[in-house]
Amino acid sequence: MNQQTSDADRAFLATTIQLAKENVAAGGGPFGALLVDARGEVVAVGQNRVTRDNDPTAHAEVVAIRAAAQSRQNFNLSGLTLYSSCEPCPMCLASSLWARVDRIVFAADRHDAAEGGFDDLEFYELFARDRSTWGTPIDWEPMDDRGAPFDAWRAEESRIDY
Amino acid sequence: MNQQTSDADRAFLATTIQLAKENVAAGGGPFGALLVDARGEVVAVGQNRVTRDNDPTAHAEVVAIRAAAQSRQNFNLSGLTLYSSCEPCPMCLASSLWARVDRIVFAADRHDAAEGGFDDLEFYELFARDRSTWGTPIDWEPMDDRGAPFDAWRAEESRIDY
Repeated sequence: MNQQTSDADRAFLATTIQLAKENVAAGGGPFGALLVDARGEVVAVGQNRVTRDNDPTAHAEVVAIRAAAQSRQNFNLSGLTLYSSCEPCPMCLASSLWARVDRIVFAADRHDAAEGGFDDLEFYELFARDRSTWGTPIDWEPMDDRGAPFDAWRAEESRIDY
Repeated sequence: MNQQTSDADRAFLATTIQLAKENVAAGGGPFGALLVDARGEVVAVGQNRVTRDNDPTAHAEVVAIRAAAQSRQNFNLSGLTLYSSCEPCPMCLASSLWARVDRIVFAADRHDAAEGGFDDLEFYELFARDRSTWGTPIDWEPMDDRGAPFDAWRAEESRIDY
């Protein structure tokens, strides 16, 4: 047992696992997530909707993050903990960073996901390798005016930082 | 000039920079993106909508990916090239991998974004470090039934792989 986790954490993870199982029965991917506030109240629920919504970004964690941000009417989700039935993939992990969640807790890991047929482990391994070795070409063309949007941004007094 | 990029690539990047500048004028973040098919037709356009939609995941690239997948009614965007005014952050890069785009081309990079006040560089650096050093705690609790959703998934004959 992880020394950092509590009975409450395990109860929330059990719920994410239940959400994941129910999602498979409903025709979706085997992933569930919750966002919970400091009082232990569930702010948002997510289940994988990639195939049902034709949205490759609709992982359970991203679905929960979008729902919580809508519910709060705030793109900043500080104060919340993200629980996931499985280790967040790089997309979901970075989404959590942008959302400024306080903490992330997960049950299965990238290796469990790989056994299930998912690419999370492969993508983590790609992130650790030089991009020149990736199958997907990634080309950087440093256009002369590439800084113009940032210049406009810094000059915009009414900008909302995020 | 990057040897891997063409005049057509630079024209599409110029469009993403224009989209980024227009988005600042409209109250959004300084980022624009396009998804283009092999014939050079623009399939989807994206501008950063984090603050306007209260969606921390609504980066330009993710907005374009979601729009293209809706347009195609398919979560798989193979055959498309993603153009972005700025290097995709880890969230957007992983989104592109899940979407199975053929190629990624960008103009500004993570260092330009950092000068603009954005955390892309910081998040890339976090990804390269051990998670125990992150400010955001990430706890793994290997629940006994963590594999149950994957067992259900593998047993589901009508499952749609992605």
